[in-house]
Amino acid sequence: MSGIVYGIGVGPGDPELVTVKAARLIGAADLVAYPAPEEGDSFARTIAASHMRAGQREFAIRMKIGEGQYPKDEVYDAAADKLAAAAAAGDSVVVLCEGDPFFYGSFMYLYARLAGRIPVKVVPGVSSLMACAIASGGALAAKNDVLTVIPAPLPEAELKRRLSEAEAAAIIKVGRHLPKVRKVLDELGLSAHARYVEHATLDSQKVIRLDELDGAAAPYFSMLLVHRRGEAWS
Amino acid sequence: MSGIVYGIGVGPGDPELVTVKAARLIGAADLVAYPAPEEGDSFARTIAASHMRAGQREFAIRMKIGEGQYPKDEVYDAAADKLAAAAAAGDSVVVLCEGDPFFYGSFMYLYARLAGRIPVKVVPGVSSLMACAIASGGALAAKNDVLTVIPAPLPEAELKRRLSEAEAAAIIKVGRHLPKVRKVLDELGLSAHARYVEHATLDSQKVIRLDELDGAAAPYFSMLLVHRRGEAWS
Repeated sequence: MSGIVYGIGVGPGDPELVTVKAARLIGAADLVAYPAPEEGDSFARTIAASHMRAGQREFAIRMKIGEGQYPKDEVYDAAADKLAAAAAAGDSVVVLCEGDPFFYGSFMYLYARLAGRIPVKVVPGVSSLMACAIASGGALAAKNDVLTVIPAPLPEAELKRRLSEAEAAAIIKVGRHLPKVRKVLDELGLSAHARYVEHATLDSQKVIRLDELDGAAAPYFSMLLVHRRGEAWS
Repeated sequence: MSGIVYGIGVGPGDPELVTVKAARLIGAADLVAYPAPEEGDSFARTIAASHMRAGQREFAIRMKIGEGQYPKDEVYDAAADKLAAAAAAGDSVVVLCEGDPFFYGSFMYLYARLAGRIPVKVVPGVSSLMACAIASGGALAAKNDVLTVIPAPLPEAELKRRLSEAEAAAIIKVGRHLPKVRKVLDELGLSAHARYVEHATLDSQKVIRLDELDGAAAPYFSMLLVHRRGEAWS
């Protein structure tokens, strides 16, 4: 008797952007696990809640969540042990992942600990990359465009080098790095080509040109999209 | 009385990877439109078929589909006119798009002709980018990796320049460009770091190391994933 662990992408935020497959597996699971902050609600669970059964067993994987925070190995070790034990006892286990599990997601750390030990399957989800492009009103990339995904925590010189070579770029994990990113885009003359998107697909969604955005910080779930040609919003 | 046109991403191929929102809108639509080859079945329609109602009105947008083929403006002009007329008459219209509508998708050409003329909304879908990474068994990107999406039709020198600078890369639209891409990856010593994925999430899915792949061509729906560090499959 052996169960299975599914790593499931639940999409960018709108509960209706969960896939039919994810909704089915979530509803059928014996145990629903999800990352959660040390105190308070899990965003992944909030997205998936309407697809869960009443009284379903749950496992909140509590960890320090936030900018530049990578949870300690012990957190993943302990969570993997608990998930593996449930699967070994025959449970169908789902681990909810915001967006897609393998696109800058934390599920890969659990996957590395579970694969080969118990059956693990990964179910793709709608990524915030695609959701933010749609929110911005312009195509992310077309035809033979090269698209570069650039994490904002990179050093300023590296950001500048990458952005100077990019035709179309998505700058992720903006957060407190907003002033640094803004400076680089200003220097490259790209600020007028950049759209800022926050909380895509949620009621709190915000889309604004970078040069109209005030403030020195952005939430963790925000992104800047840059089209060198500026065609997307012409 | 005015209807609406929805551009809907139906995901990479598995009909269960359609979102709950897409399934609802497809089932409720007065008219279901989709790109189709000049003769034969539409892949987008095949993905969505189980979410359609019996007897639903359909509009196959017939066009030359294939490598390096961009349909003529007249095809999109005529299709946009027909979609706009249906929406103006009060219909709810869905246009099915493989993967995600704004990620190298053809819906943007209809969007450009329809936006401002009638209400148009775009619904993100699961992209083949995420589906192929999962099929390959490795994360697409993690932490502060820079990820570059590179279309294979680019000239060899450009491909080489882009790949030499990439930490993680997805080479899309491989098709008949396979020998050129293989040569570039060989020269950069990256062939052992490259995984080839074809028909991700379908029963015909195939995943293989590039250096174990024979042949001089690949199907249109194929991708190469390259991790410079090779960690993904270590």
